[in-house]
Amino acid sequence: MKVGGVALRPLAAAPGRDAVLVIDQRALPHRLQIERLDSAQAVHTAIRDMWVRGAPLIGASAAYGLALALREGADDAALEQAAAWLRGARPTAVNLMWALDRMLRRLRPLPAAQRAAAAWDEADAIAEDDVRCNAAIGRHGLPLLQALFARKPGPVNVLTHCNAGWLATVDWGTATSPIYQAHAAGLPLHVWVDETRPRNQGASLTAWELGQAGVPHTLIADNAGGHLMQRGQVDLVIVGCDRVTAQGDVCNKIGTYLKALAARDNGVPFYVAMPSSTLDRNLRDGLAEIPIEERSAREVTHLQGIAASGAVVEVGIAPAGTPAANPAFDVTPARLVSGLITEFGIVAATAEALAGLPQHG
Amino acid sequence: MKVGGVALRPLAAAPGRDAVLVIDQRALPHRLQIERLDSAQAVHTAIRDMWVRGAPLIGASAAYGLALALREGADDAALEQAAAWLRGARPTAVNLMWALDRMLRRLRPLPAAQRAAAAWDEADAIAEDDVRCNAAIGRHGLPLLQALFARKPGPVNVLTHCNAGWLATVDWGTATSPIYQAHAAGLPLHVWVDETRPRNQGASLTAWELGQAGVPHTLIADNAGGHLMQRGQVDLVIVGCDRVTAQGDVCNKIGTYLKALAARDNGVPFYVAMPSSTLDRNLRDGLAEIPIEERSAREVTHLQGIAASGAVVEVGIAPAGTPAANPAFDVTPARLVSGLITEFGIVAATAEALAGLPQHG
Repeated sequence: MKVGGVALRPLAAAPGRDAVLVIDQRALPHRLQIERLDSAQAVHTAIRDMWVRGAPLIGASAAYGLALALREGADDAALEQAAAWLRGARPTAVNLMWALDRMLRRLRPLPAAQRAAAAWDEADAIAEDDVRCNAAIGRHGLPLLQALFARKPGPVNVLTHCNAGWLATVDWGTATSPIYQAHAAGLPLHVWVDETRPRNQGASLTAWELGQAGVPHTLIADNAGGHLMQRGQVDLVIVGCDRVTAQGDVCNKIGTYLKALAARDNGVPFYVAMPSSTLDRNLRDGLAEIPIEERSAREVTHLQGIAASGAVVEVGIAPAGTPAANPAFDVTPARLVSGLITEFGIVAATAEALAGLPQHG
Repeated sequence: MKVGGVALRPLAAAPGRDAVLVIDQRALPHRLQIERLDSAQAVHTAIRDMWVRGAPLIGASAAYGLALALREGADDAALEQAAAWLRGARPTAVNLMWALDRMLRRLRPLPAAQRAAAAWDEADAIAEDDVRCNAAIGRHGLPLLQALFARKPGPVNVLTHCNAGWLATVDWGTATSPIYQAHAAGLPLHVWVDETRPRNQGASLTAWELGQAGVPHTLIADNAGGHLMQRGQVDLVIVGCDRVTAQGDVCNKIGTYLKALAARDNGVPFYVAMPSSTLDRNLRDGLAEIPIEERSAREVTHLQGIAASGAVVEVGIAPAGTPAANPAFDVTPARLVSGLITEFGIVAATAEALAGLPQHG
């Protein structure tokens, strides 16, 4: 996507194959800060400390991290050690494991001397596969928006939660890909952006992305979506996902389930943009089987913003010492999901339909 | 309620009947700041700028404001003018209108010379009626908590939204009254406190209240309640209300509807603490008939907190210039409400049951 007219990705290989350039997303939306990471250690830190976030982006970043690690030595022990160490950067991120597994499958059979160059090629391939996958999700989602536009006058109102945008992927985003493609096709639309407490990815990342792309949007508190649906002001919900079970239960950012309930209560279609890599065929009952990450209480009691002085400061918003709970994800049962937008087309959130999806490499 | 062992109300008449003392709630939870208001002008400002907030507290504050105004002159013109002017402080607050109407009914028949003293008596009566009403809501709600405690081991987990606590009333609060009475009776309980974006009344007021009272509680993002209900971690929801229609539709702080949907989806009882003064017998269909206040976008894009330095600062959390929408309330349809806890007892959210409630003076 373009920022200020210049094509930009949140992760890009340096032409000399000696570093990757990433947007430090912790500084958004207040500053656009691009960092050059020239070692596996630097990539590990960027993943662990969430300079880069979003399942697809984490996977591609780790792949480049492994490629950088192999510049120091690429025998079997070094390869296995670097991969194992990178896995620890975000231990619950499924795409991180998937990307490193793919790298190992490609690299293990090769002589050590060929591994560094092959690793860079494979990391490039992982990144480009992600771009192609997301572009395909956009193409398959676009007709949903076109059909809604044909049904009533005025812009199509889409609600989204969290950031499943291009900043979470190598390009296009998942939930935002149909939006960007519709916007490019001249279809009038407007996006309701959930701020997405406690980490505010909607307010800080999705609002920034949409603003840069010139897509009309309005930021709302997470509390407002149900009310807007009751008033007929939402035509479609599209969210991303972190993991989908074989029966179509969707694990996504905390609060997604509440929006799915409101969509069902008001007859609003609720779609999930799902790269097939997110499907976990080993799980069935999402509520019973998906462990939910509990993050730091401080993310609830404190937050970062920009003061009138221009300084970015952290402030506390609760009485000192208030206990807080911070479950990071919730599970939306398949019965509330209108459909899953994959790179292969739109699929019903049922075991039968999902069983028919091609296996993900 | 007590703060640091000392009984405190958010509004109290000065013994000399020449001022009222109020907690400036804008400074909470970071500072407990008590202000002496010795003129109607000062009370008007405190209502308008939300030093005092919460429907019952606004009503009682306006009553004292009128009493203070009459010290300057109490002929018919002065009386009507002061009442009309106070109504403008929060034009959509029904309790403000109700309290001033009650004052006028008492004062209009009196000779001008008796009005100032009678006004103070009537304001005292309005305040004490509120305390009695809320205490009764607590008595009627307590058996709900006791029944839940009898059914399973461990503390009763209550979820509440916004602040319908003692800070919103003259004492006890509405939604919190059963909680405080259960806590006083030694019943083990724990409260999930929705932070309640965008104004954060849960994080700044309810968490503070419960902490002062020693009631175990945990602050959560508004997004988390559905997940907690799915996991069986919520036994009961109790919220307040701003207006209830004759058929039992409940208008309350934005986000309430989403929690009611989640409660229904998970079989969690959803109760509304409702002083009978909140019942609007003129309205039936809450969704169609209740106008929803749209507040400033800045409440969504900016917020106040305490920095590490101890200074209370405002920070922006979205890209500069991001458009935001801020509907302040939503409507929970009667079908999602398990019951209304009134000062007369628990009443079903149906037209038949509500028609049987005594008329509010």
